[in-house]
Amino acid sequence: MDTIIEAQAVMERCDILGGYSEEPGILTRRYGTPAMRQVNERVAAWMQDAGMIVRQDNAGNLVGRYEASSAGTRTLLLGSHLDTVRDAGKYDGPLGVLTALSCVQRLYDRQERLPFAIEIFAFADEEGLRFHSSYLGSKVVAGTFDPAMLRLADSEGVTLAEAMRTFGGNPDILQASKRDGSDLLGYLEVHIEQGPVLESLKLPVGVVSSIAGQSRISVNFSGEAGHAGTVPMVLRHDALCAAAEFVLAVEALGRSLPGLVATVGQITAQPGASNVIPGLVTLSLDVRHQDDAVREQACRQLQEQASSTGTARGISPGWHTLQQHRTVPCSPRLTQLLAQAIEAAKYPVYSLPSGAGHDAVAMSDLTEIAMLFVRCKGGISHHPAESVAPEDVAAAIKVLEQFLLLLAKGQ
Amino acid sequence: MDTIIEAQAVMERCDILGGYSEEPGILTRRYGTPAMRQVNERVAAWMQDAGMIVRQDNAGNLVGRYEASSAGTRTLLLGSHLDTVRDAGKYDGPLGVLTALSCVQRLYDRQERLPFAIEIFAFADEEGLRFHSSYLGSKVVAGTFDPAMLRLADSEGVTLAEAMRTFGGNPDILQASKRDGSDLLGYLEVHIEQGPVLESLKLPVGVVSSIAGQSRISVNFSGEAGHAGTVPMVLRHDALCAAAEFVLAVEALGRSLPGLVATVGQITAQPGASNVIPGLVTLSLDVRHQDDAVREQACRQLQEQASSTGTARGISPGWHTLQQHRTVPCSPRLTQLLAQAIEAAKYPVYSLPSGAGHDAVAMSDLTEIAMLFVRCKGGISHHPAESVAPEDVAAAIKVLEQFLLLLAKGQ
Repeated sequence: MDTIIEAQAVMERCDILGGYSEEPGILTRRYGTPAMRQVNERVAAWMQDAGMIVRQDNAGNLVGRYEASSAGTRTLLLGSHLDTVRDAGKYDGPLGVLTALSCVQRLYDRQERLPFAIEIFAFADEEGLRFHSSYLGSKVVAGTFDPAMLRLADSEGVTLAEAMRTFGGNPDILQASKRDGSDLLGYLEVHIEQGPVLESLKLPVGVVSSIAGQSRISVNFSGEAGHAGTVPMVLRHDALCAAAEFVLAVEALGRSLPGLVATVGQITAQPGASNVIPGLVTLSLDVRHQDDAVREQACRQLQEQASSTGTARGISPGWHTLQQHRTVPCSPRLTQLLAQAIEAAKYPVYSLPSGAGHDAVAMSDLTEIAMLFVRCKGGISHHPAESVAPEDVAAAIKVLEQFLLLLAKGQ
Repeated sequence: MDTIIEAQAVMERCDILGGYSEEPGILTRRYGTPAMRQVNERVAAWMQDAGMIVRQDNAGNLVGRYEASSAGTRTLLLGSHLDTVRDAGKYDGPLGVLTALSCVQRLYDRQERLPFAIEIFAFADEEGLRFHSSYLGSKVVAGTFDPAMLRLADSEGVTLAEAMRTFGGNPDILQASKRDGSDLLGYLEVHIEQGPVLESLKLPVGVVSSIAGQSRISVNFSGEAGHAGTVPMVLRHDALCAAAEFVLAVEALGRSLPGLVATVGQITAQPGASNVIPGLVTLSLDVRHQDDAVREQACRQLQEQASSTGTARGISPGWHTLQQHRTVPCSPRLTQLLAQAIEAAKYPVYSLPSGAGHDAVAMSDLTEIAMLFVRCKGGISHHPAESVAPEDVAAAIKVLEQFLLLLAKGQ
């Protein structure tokens, strides 16, 4: 079984979808925009070509169903998302939808039906770029979407509810788009790794063990602004110096605990003039680990660090936890099957946690989940330089096809 | 000689000028604005009341001249500026103009003339808020203004030349407003300290020894952006961690060298998302010392530090010197006279360098300079909380009057 031709077709389709953007010259596709509508239309046509019954749900998610060999059987969900971040790459999201579609196309070309139905979900909003509404699409399907979010407005004042209507959805009956869970075999998502681990190990694909829990914290240090030329060093309460100590403590802790990643990605110093000592520094802290206890302990330790750094410098620290997600374990049953599929496709099996969130997180509230990672170049994602090799896409298609066969055998 | 009533009058006038602002609720007075015009009109009237001949020069500086007892004698320049930073205090600038005016008023009230003329310069732009044109007013008077700056535009696209015309000036004949230096005795500026030294020593006034040299440098660290959840700590090239090390090295060097102040006031991390490892950090570095050799050596040391921090982390450092000013020494003759005046006024004499720049810097190209610092509360300036005590203003008026008497004796 060779799948390089299918892989190249998937790559071409990723290129085609990459051409639909809100902004000239760069790829940006937010929820509910004309670019998203064009992409949904295009993918809907491809789904129909693969023998699928296609619909768009009330949130704007595109759903294609490939019927089973007999009625009344169970359903496997595949999928990922079609929206992007700003100035995005072409593979984060679309690759999962299009590899799934490629497998269904192969079944349809062979006029083959499996003992279970397949539904491909192309979620309309995972990145949450427009409304800060991450997993919007998959949350509606899982039935966990909070209707209060419909009042969120984008930067131009358009509410999520309005955008949903413009997009052909119906915010009033979102609960009707919750997928019934009783017939489900699970949800499997193919996604680029967005990290450098598979590349460093020279592996085309990897099985995801869990999606790491995450804490997002806003930290601030409130010192005393002053003239950079006139306040002697010993009389200063420089908020940026306190913040710098903290940034290095975050890095040191991240390095000392295996599997922990801890990042300060945003920092603002106020008043922010070259000749004024910073009086207030605000920074973001992102902590992730697949063991929730390790993550929580790390956060406590860093909070103490912020406190002691502040005290030593006569600076008040502030600590505000913005978000906390527990680790979402992948289904042992589906993950084991996925590992068997990788073996059957003649690739080494390697298991790794996902440090990034995915629609699978939201879908875990509905059904068992599994994820297959595909190697990406340099670990780069959310960037136009995002790149995958056709051979690795071929590997993903092969593994996914083996997975379907193994699952069919077990039915 | 008691001067508390005069001091209270000066305080009231500072309050009055503080009411002329471009923005409601806060004090902002940029070059050439209606608020500046109102302030010039007000101060011109006060100058006339004090028996001065008043004119506005081609840059918009207000100049009041109080004639000497006999013609053909020499002239002492006093003064400071009337423009402000954004959301300013009431004393930075106006205090120098109004204490000088108070002394002239006292002479006039007594119908007293000195053996030298006095000219009070109320400079129209020292802060450079509107056009980034620091010392504009005093540079025109000193004859060092670069006419190329006339093409600079403010945030609304109005050029400096246009603003100057609107303000009643004439950019075409600025050289005519250069003050002839041949008859000058020097330039003396009274200014709030803008630092906490006098307050910490419980002293109302201080003699400035020199205006410290300054280096302004833009430093950047270019690492590798990446996903905060997926790039293991050991594979990162986090630009912010390198910058944090550098910020602490700046502080450590500042603390280790007496008299050195070194400050990182601005910092920007890009791309600047909480879930992305910073790939590029840019920061400002401000280094000042009254000994140029110490400052230059400190800058070299910090540049090496940026380099070694970068190398150790696989991060490219960038170093761009934006501005360098040599230390401007105050006139030993005038400074000694000022110290005698402080003694005569029965205050302890304390000498300190100025870490901040003042019009005196530009005026040093024209004539000998001296400065008298007045204690300010908490060392706070460039802020609505800027505050001076009437008793300290009274001390400044007393010292200035003694200075005039001592200078008159020496003539």
